[in-house]
Amino acid sequence: MRMYDLAGADERYRFSPYCWRIKMILAHKGLDCDYVAWRFTDKDRLPQPNQGLVPVLVDGETVVGDSWKIIGYLDERYPQRPIFESEQARSQALFLKYWLERTIHPLITRIVLRDAWAGQHPNDQAYFRESREKRFGKPLEEVVADREQTRVRLREVLDPLRATLQDQPCLSGQQPALADYLAFSTLQWARCVSDFDLLEQSDPIYAWRERMLALFDGLGAKAMRSSAGTT
Amino acid sequence: MRMYDLAGADERYRFSPYCWRIKMILAHKGLDCDYVAWRFTDKDRLPQPNQGLVPVLVDGETVVGDSWKIIGYLDERYPQRPIFESEQARSQALFLKYWLERTIHPLITRIVLRDAWAGQHPNDQAYFRESREKRFGKPLEEVVADREQTRVRLREVLDPLRATLQDQPCLSGQQPALADYLAFSTLQWARCVSDFDLLEQSDPIYAWRERMLALFDGLGAKAMRSSAGTT
Repeated sequence: MRMYDLAGADERYRFSPYCWRIKMILAHKGLDCDYVAWRFTDKDRLPQPNQGLVPVLVDGETVVGDSWKIIGYLDERYPQRPIFESEQARSQALFLKYWLERTIHPLITRIVLRDAWAGQHPNDQAYFRESREKRFGKPLEEVVADREQTRVRLREVLDPLRATLQDQPCLSGQQPALADYLAFSTLQWARCVSDFDLLEQSDPIYAWRERMLALFDGLGAKAMRSSAGTT
Repeated sequence: MRMYDLAGADERYRFSPYCWRIKMILAHKGLDCDYVAWRFTDKDRLPQPNQGLVPVLVDGETVVGDSWKIIGYLDERYPQRPIFESEQARSQALFLKYWLERTIHPLITRIVLRDAWAGQHPNDQAYFRESREKRFGKPLEEVVADREQTRVRLREVLDPLRATLQDQPCLSGQQPALADYLAFSTLQWARCVSDFDLLEQSDPIYAWRERMLALFDGLGAKAMRSSAGTT
């Protein structure tokens, strides 16, 4: 199996939240995979069919894109160590996925976007800046200008996650599973691309993230972070 | 079994989102229950132990308060027609519960609070106004003064729910279950206490709510709404 995985200036620097989902799930299932460094301007290098986005998983003759579809594929094809106990748990995780993507990602973006640009490969930086500045209608530097305030807002918006983790060790209950990997991947993206701390150390979300970072022999904790990747 | 259920001016007018959770779940399980009208100023009438809040469920010798604890009790004591397929599904529903309570309820409150006051029993109105005005630090009329704008914000914040219901018929997947009853109860509260429409008819959440209202022989649809209760 191989997966195309977004990389930055340093090829070992892998930050995409969508790719992290799949890396955590493959580790949970104990499946080996070759993670191929891929950059935004490598659109031609992806196997067909693709939407010009990663992750793309290649398993023998099968090519699957889109992280949610890859999750479904892996669960069906490799039922060992399932990442959800029931169809209901999987269905409910879809709400969490959308909450992360529609509510949390936009706030994190307004905190880390300039740092994310700095960690890109030189070939990608112009594309990255241009596409993001077009989307936001202003320079990257202005997008993140209020990031201290955005962080206050983010911590408020994370409240349902915090309250859940005050009542139980993981979003999935006692043990980490699909819901945890989804939420962790979002925070891991922020952690990889920027050293601007999103969470206070006293936050129950911080303690949970520490436990997630330690899983699978420290897979998350060992990940290269931007400051390392750009120096 | 009997459950103490918050009532308004008209005894048949029952609007509490926490009580609706239990009513939907008891209907799902096909369990009969006597719903006892209870008002805010009836604190002394609740069975012991209680926190002065409803729902309180009395089942033989057992008294259970707090909607989440009642859900756990019912599932254990009456395992027929379970409302969740796995412990994971139940654990994940806790995040949804907190999202509703911490993110959605405050927005709905800023839309319906004045209408909610109007539907209270005369004995409760002074208590209701005083306690809420103390919490918000301003008259009820000012809390809801920007409700058109709050509704715009609410519709944005509901986006993860909307996106989920565009992909699958229910939050729980193909069939309604715990997650759906939690989210429905929040919207049913707003629908009961105010005729100020939260949702556009073209919203996928609206269509889902219509299906939820029709469940169990129209249990939700038949509920008395405030305008009926106060005329």
